[in-house]
Amino acid sequence: MQFAFTKANEKVYNSSMEKELTEQTVQQNLIYDGKIIRLYRDDVTLPNGQAAVREYVSHPGGAAVLPIDDEGNVYLVRQFRYPYRTELLEVPAGKLEQNEAPQQAAIRELEEETGLRAGDVRELGVFYPTPGYTDERLHIYLATHLVQGNMHLDSDEFVSVIKIPFDEVLQMVRNNAIKDGKTCFAVMRYALER
Amino acid sequence: MQFAFTKANEKVYNSSMEKELTEQTVQQNLIYDGKIIRLYRDDVTLPNGQAAVREYVSHPGGAAVLPIDDEGNVYLVRQFRYPYRTELLEVPAGKLEQNEAPQQAAIRELEEETGLRAGDVRELGVFYPTPGYTDERLHIYLATHLVQGNMHLDSDEFVSVIKIPFDEVLQMVRNNAIKDGKTCFAVMRYALER
Repeated sequence: MQFAFTKANEKVYNSSMEKELTEQTVQQNLIYDGKIIRLYRDDVTLPNGQAAVREYVSHPGGAAVLPIDDEGNVYLVRQFRYPYRTELLEVPAGKLEQNEAPQQAAIRELEEETGLRAGDVRELGVFYPTPGYTDERLHIYLATHLVQGNMHLDSDEFVSVIKIPFDEVLQMVRNNAIKDGKTCFAVMRYALER
Repeated sequence: MQFAFTKANEKVYNSSMEKELTEQTVQQNLIYDGKIIRLYRDDVTLPNGQAAVREYVSHPGGAAVLPIDDEGNVYLVRQFRYPYRTELLEVPAGKLEQNEAPQQAAIRELEEETGLRAGDVRELGVFYPTPGYTDERLHIYLATHLVQGNMHLDSDEFVSVIKIPFDEVLQMVRNNAIKDGKTCFAVMRYALER
C-alpha cells in the first residue's frame, strides 16, 4: 500500500504519472436505465489485483446559474426535493439536454425557471457533487445584467422564485439555512471573487 | 402554478407554511439494494394532482474533515474515483456507520485515511450534494491540533496522502484543479470564516 507525504508539486496536477491507484473495469453491468439516471454495478480489479464491485449512478451532467441583478439581489428557486421530502432553496439549474453545452443549459434553465434573461454569463467553475457513486459534472455560472424574459416550466416542475440580497444569501449559506450543494458552491465562489 | 416574488422573510425558513409544492408518495419501490446505495423509483402525486415518478438514491450519509496542522498545511487524500475513471484530491471522508454520529465518523475517517488524530474538531456545515436524485447528507468538519495516530484503510481503499499549504489548496479550488464537492465546500467555508 502506498503512503506518501509529498510537498505540493506537479504530481498533484498530473496524476497520470502514478498508476498504482487505478481500478480497471472487468465488466460494466447496467442495473437500471431510468428517465434521468442510470445505475451501474461494475466488476473491477483493484490496484492490488483483487476483484471488487463499484456501484454508481450515471447522469447527463447539470448546469446551474447564480443570477444577480444590478441592485445585488439574487434570484433563487424554492422547490420540493423528493429525496429529502422537503423544499429547498436553490440557484436555477437543470440537467443538460443531449448535445447541449453547459452554458446554454444554464441560460435556458434560468429563463425557464425564473423568467429572466442574462445580458452577461460567465463560468464560476465545475464540481463533482459526490464522486463515490455518481459521475455527474455540475457546471456553475454567474448571470448578470438581467432582463425580463418568459418563464416556462416543465410539466412536472413546480417552483417559487425568491429574490434576496446577495449578502443575505451568503449569510444563509454560512448558517446552513441553504443546504443545496451547487447553491453553496456558487455563492461561496462568488463571495471569494467579487 | 405558483409564481411569487417575495422579499426575504421568515417564509424562506419556514416553508411548511406553503404546501403547494409538496409531492406525495403513492408507493415506494425499491429497485436495487446495494453495498452502499439503494435505488428507489417511487410513484408520487404532484402538487397539481398528476401522477409522476421520482428516481433517487438512498445513502447512509457521509462525513468529511478539513485537517489543518499548526503550520497551516492541509492533508488531502488522492484516490481513484471509479465513476469518473480518474484520481481526485479530496478531504478525508467516508460514509456513516450504523448509529454513528457524523462527528465520530469524521474523526474515524481522518485517522483511518491519514493516520492523524485531531486535538480539536468543529463543524463547518452540512450540505446536500445533488438533491435531485440522492438523499445524502454530507457533514463537514474542521480538524486542528493534529497529532500522529495510526493509519488503517479498508481492504478496498487505496489512497495517497498529500500535504499542501491552505492558501495553495484554496487556489486549487478557485482554479478548478480540485473538483470534489465536499472539498470545495470545506475549503471555501473555512476561507470565508478564518
